Amino acid sequence: MHGPFEAGASRVYQRVAVLGVGLLGGSFALAIKRRGLAREVVGYAKSPSTLNAALAAGVIDHGADSALRAVTGADLVVLAVPVAATAALLKQIALGVSAGSLLLDVGSTKADVALAAQQALGARAGQFVPCHPIAGGEVSGVQHARAALFDGCRVVVTPLDENPPTLVDAACALWEGLGAHVARMTPAEHDAAFAAVSHLPHLLAFAYVQALTRQPKGGGYLQLAGPGFRDFTRIAASDAVMWRDVFHANGSEVLHQLQLFKQALAAFEAQLRQGNWSLLENLIRDASASRQAWSTPSVDDDIA
Amino acid sequence: MHGPFEAGASRVYQRVAVLGVGLLGGSFALAIKRRGLAREVVGYAKSPSTLNAALAAGVIDHGADSALRAVTGADLVVLAVPVAATAALLKQIALGVSAGSLLLDVGSTKADVALAAQQALGARAGQFVPCHPIAGGEVSGVQHARAALFDGCRVVVTPLDENPPTLVDAACALWEGLGAHVARMTPAEHDAAFAAVSHLPHLLAFAYVQALTRQPKGGGYLQLAGPGFRDFTRIAASDAVMWRDVFHANGSEVLHQLQLFKQALAAFEAQLRQGNWSLLENLIRDASASRQAWSTPSVDDDIA
Repeated sequence: MHGPFEAGASRVYQRVAVLGVGLLGGSFALAIKRRGLAREVVGYAKSPSTLNAALAAGVIDHGADSALRAVTGADLVVLAVPVAATAALLKQIALGVSAGSLLLDVGSTKADVALAAQQALGARAGQFVPCHPIAGGEVSGVQHARAALFDGCRVVVTPLDENPPTLVDAACALWEGLGAHVARMTPAEHDAAFAAVSHLPHLLAFAYVQALTRQPKGGGYLQLAGPGFRDFTRIAASDAVMWRDVFHANGSEVLHQLQLFKQALAAFEAQLRQGNWSLLENLIRDASASRQAWSTPSVDDDIA
Repeated sequence: MHGPFEAGASRVYQRVAVLGVGLLGGSFALAIKRRGLAREVVGYAKSPSTLNAALAAGVIDHGADSALRAVTGADLVVLAVPVAATAALLKQIALGVSAGSLLLDVGSTKADVALAAQQALGARAGQFVPCHPIAGGEVSGVQHARAALFDGCRVVVTPLDENPPTLVDAACALWEGLGAHVARMTPAEHDAAFAAVSHLPHLLAFAYVQALTRQPKGGGYLQLAGPGFRDFTRIAASDAVMWRDVFHANGSEVLHQLQLFKQALAAFEAQLRQGNWSLLENLIRDASASRQAWSTPSVDDDIA
């Protein structure tokens, strides 16, 4: 593989501040230590019990009693809080951010995070590189944190116009150093793409599970569900607050994708109602062939 | 476990006719031999190349050049063809069915199969016990057949009014003998339940993949899809002819479930459009809690 970051290994950070020590923040803390890319990891969590759990599990080296104290003196700051909390957190730390330090986040939406950084950080906005590691899933909490979470996963980096290219390269090199593969695009491109491949499927899975369980015989039907149901609905077990925030942050793109889906579903329904079996078969064949041709991007693939 | 069939092990069949040697038929042939419940397995397939592949792979002991020849002298006949082909196949074999033999199928819909058996088999209809093993998935073809396919899987048995109870027990004992767990219900109950937990999810997954891949940037978006997409759409890779037939056979129940889904989806969309974030969160929380509470029925569970 000849990716853009193979030659340039990540620098080693002296003091990493991880703000939010849930699944993603905790896994980041574990991974950067395991890979030898951080000398010290300081954690901060709004809830003292979460912070204590992270300390007790050895996920972080130290706990800070405020986000501002955590970032003071840090050369790397990782925001791993729900996206809706990002703007407020950035305001809390704006005055403590060191010159030349790198800030990044791990949120599932990017245009809102980019705007929040530009508004909250002012002249320091160029130090913030928005990132989205495609990792996590339906579990959450520091108890699920693991050093290998980012190994082989894809990370989308969506630079701001204000970012110096060297800092974007540093962010990409860091993710590659954690075993991830980096793709770069704009925040808007990211949000349009993930509305299509992630946010809409979550909405559909939530709505489907609600429709199933709210019907009178739903409980009995659930007893008969098999592996197809299990996989189709796995993402419906995801965290409600996180997904409320994703839909809030990316509502217009999600609604756009929803309209495209409803049009496709209406075509299937029309053939089914009208008994046009060969047309229905063609629609299914198209979808089936597309899905069969797709495969999870390999860790050996070059990243554009 | 104290299921109804623990004491009564399955009888051993002298000559098993497997009509259709794809994934399910081939796996049944392998499984019944592996478990020592058949002395000889004769296969039939409409396509000679499929039959030769099954012979070459050792999936069946002999091939027959007609379905009628295959069932002649058989004490167990297994129909493993697409559900839409069941009626025609039953007519072909009706005159060759031995008195006292057991016939069963493995189709995903049951009311249509029950009706086809009653119409085609006449006085012999009581020998046909409709069955649906919840196994298979998005692959098909004898090359994927494996003896362990039914191990730990659930099989729904939907007796006809004409079935002698001893024959229903024999069918259940046979599936248990292959490692499966049996649930009994009526064909109509089966079709209502599986429209909800299987057929509608397939329709939604097909429509979603179509909507995604038909949009101008869909190909690029697909490159960014991750594990959530992979699992949500796995069933969209399923066989087009099989699923056309399922929707054909169970259209009214599928349309009923589709209406319930569209109502639920409309509620999610309304909260999203109106920015009712706490109401949206409540809907998601309901779905997430329901899905978290569900787990694949364990192989150690008692079966009602």
